[in-house]
Amino acid sequence: MQVVVIGGDAVGMTAASQLKRTMRDAVQVTVLQEQEWTSYSACGIPYWIAGEVSGPEALVARSPAAHRVNGIDVRTGHRATRIDPEARVVTAVGSGAEQEFAYDHLVIGTGATPRRPPIPGLDLPGVYRVQTLDEAKAAIAGLAQDPRRAVVLGAGYIGVEMAEAGISRGLDTTVVDVAAEPMASLDPDMGCLVREGMIARGAHLRMGQVVREVVAGPDGRVRAVVTDEGEIPADIVFLGLGVKPRTELARAAGLPLGEAGGIRTDDRQRVLGYADVWAGGDCVEVTDRLTGRFRYLPLGTHANKHGRVIGSNIAGGDMAFPGVVGTAVTRFQDLEIARTGLTEAEGAGLDLDLVSVVVHSTTAAGYMPEAAPIAVKMIAERDGGRVLGAQIVGGRGAGLRIDTAAVALWSGLTAADVAQLDLAYAPPLSPVWDPVQQAARVLSSRVAS
Amino acid sequence: MQVVVIGGDAVGMTAASQLKRTMRDAVQVTVLQEQEWTSYSACGIPYWIAGEVSGPEALVARSPAAHRVNGIDVRTGHRATRIDPEARVVTAVGSGAEQEFAYDHLVIGTGATPRRPPIPGLDLPGVYRVQTLDEAKAAIAGLAQDPRRAVVLGAGYIGVEMAEAGISRGLDTTVVDVAAEPMASLDPDMGCLVREGMIARGAHLRMGQVVREVVAGPDGRVRAVVTDEGEIPADIVFLGLGVKPRTELARAAGLPLGEAGGIRTDDRQRVLGYADVWAGGDCVEVTDRLTGRFRYLPLGTHANKHGRVIGSNIAGGDMAFPGVVGTAVTRFQDLEIARTGLTEAEGAGLDLDLVSVVVHSTTAAGYMPEAAPIAVKMIAERDGGRVLGAQIVGGRGAGLRIDTAAVALWSGLTAADVAQLDLAYAPPLSPVWDPVQQAARVLSSRVAS
Repeated sequence: MQVVVIGGDAVGMTAASQLKRTMRDAVQVTVLQEQEWTSYSACGIPYWIAGEVSGPEALVARSPAAHRVNGIDVRTGHRATRIDPEARVVTAVGSGAEQEFAYDHLVIGTGATPRRPPIPGLDLPGVYRVQTLDEAKAAIAGLAQDPRRAVVLGAGYIGVEMAEAGISRGLDTTVVDVAAEPMASLDPDMGCLVREGMIARGAHLRMGQVVREVVAGPDGRVRAVVTDEGEIPADIVFLGLGVKPRTELARAAGLPLGEAGGIRTDDRQRVLGYADVWAGGDCVEVTDRLTGRFRYLPLGTHANKHGRVIGSNIAGGDMAFPGVVGTAVTRFQDLEIARTGLTEAEGAGLDLDLVSVVVHSTTAAGYMPEAAPIAVKMIAERDGGRVLGAQIVGGRGAGLRIDTAAVALWSGLTAADVAQLDLAYAPPLSPVWDPVQQAARVLSSRVAS
Repeated sequence: MQVVVIGGDAVGMTAASQLKRTMRDAVQVTVLQEQEWTSYSACGIPYWIAGEVSGPEALVARSPAAHRVNGIDVRTGHRATRIDPEARVVTAVGSGAEQEFAYDHLVIGTGATPRRPPIPGLDLPGVYRVQTLDEAKAAIAGLAQDPRRAVVLGAGYIGVEMAEAGISRGLDTTVVDVAAEPMASLDPDMGCLVREGMIARGAHLRMGQVVREVVAGPDGRVRAVVTDEGEIPADIVFLGLGVKPRTELARAAGLPLGEAGGIRTDDRQRVLGYADVWAGGDCVEVTDRLTGRFRYLPLGTHANKHGRVIGSNIAGGDMAFPGVVGTAVTRFQDLEIARTGLTEAEGAGLDLDLVSVVVHSTTAAGYMPEAAPIAVKMIAERDGGRVLGAQIVGGRGAGLRIDTAAVALWSGLTAADVAQLDLAYAPPLSPVWDPVQQAARVLSSRVAS
């Protein structure tokens, strides 16, 4: 069997590895990868730029050479240029020449590409995207030129992480975003806590500002970011404006795309309408378990699971990807920020009748030196109290508590159920009522029963 | 309505507070409490002794005076001596005099009492129990006498925590236990990791030794702990030998006790056979959701929930305590130790056909400075793969991951389900596959489907 994989990162290499492991010599896997790297952690890039991670090699989970040892034909420097799903052929350009790769099964893992709003100046020297290892390398070279002031465009996950990186590098760091609060994937009442926490930890925030232009100084390098409210001096600019699915090839081949622009697949990760084309990771839309709808949620966790599902299914298995609930976490220094399920705003958009609560507690027993503030927001259906979402902002140890809520809403538990769960308690690690349970307890009293 | 509560700690004061909050002047609540404190955290005592918590006041969540402000008649220094369930009267001794308290409803929250094996010398000066605030105060006075060598009897939760406290106080600290590995509530393969971790962090462990005697020096104070393998010099000794339900009153009154010695109640926390007697916390047995059997699991989390359930039910509500799954966590310095559900050994005792796996991973992405080793053991039914237990030993951030497994097994998820859960990921906080999911993934491949 011939399998061609486009994209040598999480979904592609996981699928390829899974296939070789189960089918061995009965499958030939060719991976077309534009970059020189495979299987790297894009999520780790801000920490490399921050100086916490020593170099790009550390972010590479498995190199092309290591994959080749496992029998996978990895073609780095090969850019796929065309998919012909009728003829079952992928065309790619590598080392200048064009080449055709016939397949029995095709795996599409083309990932995401940074959003590029039409802002003049985003190509100026000193303005960096931070999505690929090569881009990160360029940004680190930019840091070597001794900038003093950094501006981060965008206050989402990447923006918050790049703000931490800027401060770690000793830069006077400002985050700009048109939203009123950072982390728009949280409700504003929780985003407000993120803003306060970031400011208390040394970041400057310019929220509610529209970026008009990035302008250069006399040396041709970036000098300032211009917003509708004025100029923010900048010696270096990082872009954290989010990503969109990278689907030019899929679109040109006529594969089905959704409203968010991602490839549409069934729950086996088979592209809708194509028996032998599979897709996963940042280039597809995923199903939200809570709403049954497609949404675009590019995360490494989903990509890895997609790869496993695809590898297993091409090898003759029947594994489903059960969908997502929208769990995510990040941190700004010791401030941890997490969410799962639906926000209140998302729920309102779906015309759901929700109740919510925000409780303020501590990450450990209040009398312990480890105790840090934590706020938990929990959201449930008014009728019956099924938990539909949670958000957490707090100190060290706060963030991963979102998993308690994530498993609870995955399993369809109500707020009253969550209040009764048997969770772990020890004074240095938790109050006797875990903050997630405190929220559930209050929430359960507001539910119509 | 007259409600009498015996015991002014978690279950008693939670029930009392809940009652007053909902029924206000329609209820009179009298609490008989032997000690001068109410609502204190016994779990925090090792950290007070360690010097991390400043004083006993910090461990008191709500003082008798504060409870009185809320309208609860707290009688400290009152020791209940007899329950007459026919006449609905409790007799107590306070300030020398005997007094009778009539009730419409009785709440029993007498808690636990330390196990006292028949070892000579446990009453010597310099030997300390650490369950009550008064005992802790005595132990701290003992530390002021400048001991050099501490011996902790028992390597369970309290023993491990007291070993940390001894080392925090600069003492050369040895833990002795007859078990082969510390933390007998874990399987030995995980207990072994605890032992290695404790030794690496400066504790001495004498496992598999039977304590014969504690002996005094010429000054009459403790000098050594004598085991079947020799003498361990000791200037101070802490007892961490576990607890048993404190049920003398209940037994004398003819209330039903279980095999583990705890009071038996229904799921409303009503004592079996008594319409107006309620009990909870460390003096009762709880139902294990996984086996349907009663077991004795004295934990503050259950006591607080019991108090809420009892208060709600006496006030006319109908709240059930849904049972436990045996979740617990502790730490030894930065080594976190947790468990939930059944161990392999417990499962074998129940004739369950189980599969298990231990995976070794890291608490954060492997390339991050935050990454610490973590081992996760997961246990499932061979037939179908339902998760029945998990154990975790690892660095900072490891312990509370047990809650992911706890919610999963509470909800009846299989190992394959857990591998597909949508959990939080960020490089400083987790690998892209959470260690709990890594274990579930491997385990799911060993399950008969």
